Amino acid sequence: MKRLSTLVRIAIVCVMVISSILVAASSAQVSTPESVPYPDGYREWMHVKSALITPQSRGFKRFGGLHNIYANAKALEGYRTGVFADGAVIVADFLETQEKDGDISEGKRRFIDVMQKDSKRFAQTGGWGFEEFSSDSKTERTLTNPTKECFQCHTTKQESGFVFSSMRK
Amino acid sequence: MKRLSTLVRIAIVCVMVISSILVAASSAQVSTPESVPYPDGYREWMHVKSALITPQSRGFKRFGGLHNIYANAKALEGYRTGVFADGAVIVADFLETQEKDGDISEGKRRFIDVMQKDSKRFAQTGGWGFEEFSSDSKTERTLTNPTKECFQCHTTKQESGFVFSSMRK
Repeated sequence: MKRLSTLVRIAIVCVMVISSILVAASSAQVSTPESVPYPDGYREWMHVKSALITPQSRGFKRFGGLHNIYANAKALEGYRTGVFADGAVIVADFLETQEKDGDISEGKRRFIDVMQKDSKRFAQTGGWGFEEFSSDSKTERTLTNPTKECFQCHTTKQESGFVFSSMRK
Repeated sequence: MKRLSTLVRIAIVCVMVISSILVAASSAQVSTPESVPYPDGYREWMHVKSALITPQSRGFKRFGGLHNIYANAKALEGYRTGVFADGAVIVADFLETQEKDGDISEGKRRFIDVMQKDSKRFAQTGGWGFEEFSSDSKTERTLTNPTKECFQCHTTKQESGFVFSSMRK
């Protein structure tokens, strides 16, 4: 009887371990060696520019709201010279909006999009790796294959180093 | 004849000097000892938040467009602690907007508004001096009495140190 009880316990533990592995495996958001890391401290980086995607835009569902773009020191150099060196990181911070009497202010964070230059790791995508983090999370990745998905649009901007934004003076 | 010519020359110079003085005096934008200086390098300061004032807002004529707020290191401390020390400077950067297919992007700079904490110089206005610079100019001041005019609204925000904005995380 005691031996049976021990076996049941072992079986329960095994089921829990296997379940955890399956949950992790089913989630495409798990960090991999190819992942772009969360850009710690990006809020203190230089502000590149801001824009609003309104409900009248065809991009509203995906990117709607107010977004602010930030660049680390290496990316700033890239905006100036037109050449983004390895280590350059650009973050687009997408926020919901709140409207009151014609004044549109920032709401909750929807997600952040990150692009990081590493010409060896991301040789297939112009040297850029991409990632999207949900809301305020530093770990919850929202896309199945972020680098491939994001680069589909960024590939159109080859003349500006695959970067859409330019630095406002 | 030569003496007359000399007198005419002197008269012309005097007219030019007096004209210059009158032009300067008629302009309320002249820098005075009470003036708040242009905030050199503010574009590299931390971005506090952004907002859009649409044509539907009653503030549109005065503040319409997209504006971005920046804070120097002392002002950042003020946002954190609620107490703004002398030397804190906050800049609101007002831009025109351009709309295309529901996407609203930044246009030309309209003006920047600056508030600088100096509790001695600006004791009458909560310790804050105010200034507005036209477009991209570092010298063209747009208001007759900026500190008095701006403080009329800021006086309503005494509970937050006379500062309207708060730092977005």
